[in-house]
Amino acid sequence: MLDTFNPISRVLMGPGPSNVSPRVLGALAKPTIGHLDPQFIQLMDEIKSLLQYAFATENEFTIALSAPGSAGMEACIVNLIEPEDKVIVCVNGVFGGRLKENIERVGAQAIVIEDNWGDPVSLEKVASAFSSNSNIKALAFVHAETSTGVCSDAKALCEIAKNNGAITIVDAVTSLGGSELKIDEWGIDAVYSGSQKCMSCVPGLSPVSFSQTAVETLKTRKSKVQSWFLDQSLVMDYWSGDGKRSYHHTAPINSLYALHEALLILKEEGLENAWARHMRLHQRLKSGIEELGIDFLVDEPYRLPQLNSLVIPKGVDDVQARKYLLDTYNLEVGAGLGKLAGKTWRIGLMGATANEQNIALLLSALKDVIR
Amino acid sequence: MLDTFNPISRVLMGPGPSNVSPRVLGALAKPTIGHLDPQFIQLMDEIKSLLQYAFATENEFTIALSAPGSAGMEACIVNLIEPEDKVIVCVNGVFGGRLKENIERVGAQAIVIEDNWGDPVSLEKVASAFSSNSNIKALAFVHAETSTGVCSDAKALCEIAKNNGAITIVDAVTSLGGSELKIDEWGIDAVYSGSQKCMSCVPGLSPVSFSQTAVETLKTRKSKVQSWFLDQSLVMDYWSGDGKRSYHHTAPINSLYALHEALLILKEEGLENAWARHMRLHQRLKSGIEELGIDFLVDEPYRLPQLNSLVIPKGVDDVQARKYLLDTYNLEVGAGLGKLAGKTWRIGLMGATANEQNIALLLSALKDVIR
Repeated sequence: MLDTFNPISRVLMGPGPSNVSPRVLGALAKPTIGHLDPQFIQLMDEIKSLLQYAFATENEFTIALSAPGSAGMEACIVNLIEPEDKVIVCVNGVFGGRLKENIERVGAQAIVIEDNWGDPVSLEKVASAFSSNSNIKALAFVHAETSTGVCSDAKALCEIAKNNGAITIVDAVTSLGGSELKIDEWGIDAVYSGSQKCMSCVPGLSPVSFSQTAVETLKTRKSKVQSWFLDQSLVMDYWSGDGKRSYHHTAPINSLYALHEALLILKEEGLENAWARHMRLHQRLKSGIEELGIDFLVDEPYRLPQLNSLVIPKGVDDVQARKYLLDTYNLEVGAGLGKLAGKTWRIGLMGATANEQNIALLLSALKDVIR
Repeated sequence: MLDTFNPISRVLMGPGPSNVSPRVLGALAKPTIGHLDPQFIQLMDEIKSLLQYAFATENEFTIALSAPGSAGMEACIVNLIEPEDKVIVCVNGVFGGRLKENIERVGAQAIVIEDNWGDPVSLEKVASAFSSNSNIKALAFVHAETSTGVCSDAKALCEIAKNNGAITIVDAVTSLGGSELKIDEWGIDAVYSGSQKCMSCVPGLSPVSFSQTAVETLKTRKSKVQSWFLDQSLVMDYWSGDGKRSYHHTAPINSLYALHEALLILKEEGLENAWARHMRLHQRLKSGIEELGIDFLVDEPYRLPQLNSLVIPKGVDDVQARKYLLDTYNLEVGAGLGKLAGKTWRIGLMGATANEQNIALLLSALKDVIR
């Protein structure tokens, strides 16, 4: 009764996964080898070096965590935050809220800075929170909020944190490879991302990088990391550069083949060129959306090129419209998330999805569906 | 300088990953679709039903967790065990030790039953631990210990736990699909496995199943699950059978295509037939190993057909021998793990790896290397 799965292809213009190129899918399907095979160790070293390029960092501890971005977020929190620590966490969308939830589940104290969904994190509020609280261990925020499409000023936020002696934990799930992100230059201590956004790799991996300060913070913890699977002090011994690799868990071999190929593609294009492509195509999308009379949720200066939240026009049924786009055009756009459910659509222009052909399709299809 | 990764194929006769068939690799490389696409929801339902078949269970909560078996282990512990709970945990190898570590990281009390590495868990010691301790919340043990190749009597252990009012948490990473495993009949409350062993799927997923008792235990917790990513009360809303699926994290779409295909292959063969094939080929291996004069670590009645720990013959250098097998025959065998490092080899006969051709190769190659 059950049979081999043969999915109808879709154009993926939601908040991720983005379309995965045949080249990356080809890499994915190479024969599986062992997680301690010298060939695989070599691959891990190459992935580390390519991730350092993508993150613009020289951090020695730069890896692909063997689980999705949510696990990357949790890894940063559980490794660097201990019970009773005080953390300023910025909530301007779903993923800021998830950061807060993770901080609380560690038993730490979350000092929450709230901003409207669609607004960037307020620098003033963060500075003020540092002024009125002492002994803040860390500042945690989302660089590119996937639920709203807003970009916060990561550079300035990190500067505030540094001036107050706090480490920084940054969600770059949607920014990596899609818009400017400079780990070392901005002084980010811990960053996590996802494979399925602007990397256009298959979902399931989370690139993570720790600065030397973050590594020291981990190494000088008073308590054990509450998660064994996410304990990066153990994972380091598997990803470390020296000869001996300690088994921690079985890495997702084939997914890492795919990430390697996706990172090669990024390097071939060039990081700055990739950022510029996303911005150029965002401008193309923007003019088309304006012609259709549809509003953006986010004010222009703060918009992420790779994730565009559109206000659903009055009289258009959210669920029916997205179903129509999927059924008629094999076109996936994202629903609003959390308190924006039913109010916005999220249009992803990420990685391999970000091209003229897809924008032309989207604009025609949107015109059809909002008639 | 860096180029597309083109691994030399290996015959994978270690403790996993096992060889992945072209059919499963083909499924893996199908175009990525969205994690909320109706096609994908249908696939998830089919995977659930196929996993119920593989686990011999009707448990409604039967899923593939989006991370490796180690995360499946941690998920069972963090969801079902709370701080201060008392858990009897059986340690007769590396993975029993990892269970203990997970229990302690939750802040629970681990009552440890130790057995020699290579011996099965002692029923008498477990019964005696229940007699001399009250209010035991759970019994946790490894069914098929991947570090030694020993099989413990899961059915009898579950019976002891039930008679003492405790739930059971069982590691079936290496047993699922390779030897007898009957979740419902044996009364296992929580079980986790791995995709890359006898399923012969790519690594990175952990099949997990909770009985109704386990689900009730989770739902009536006093404290929040310490991990957000592994909180199965949230994951349930994404995998649940009713119409509405709540986004929790982005599932590893392509890996799930592969698991679906691997489970179809298992169903086509038939679960009992797969168990019988592993046993038949183990017997074939055994007579060849005996001819070579190599000893098994584990006494015959307790040997796992799918994982054979061999005592490295005197005078043979472990590392050099395995390197020779890899370089000369593209044949991977597993090293000893933990306190068995340098003392044993682990020969996997798992899933697609378990065939006459591979055994013939292994026996010839071993004969060559131990000369």
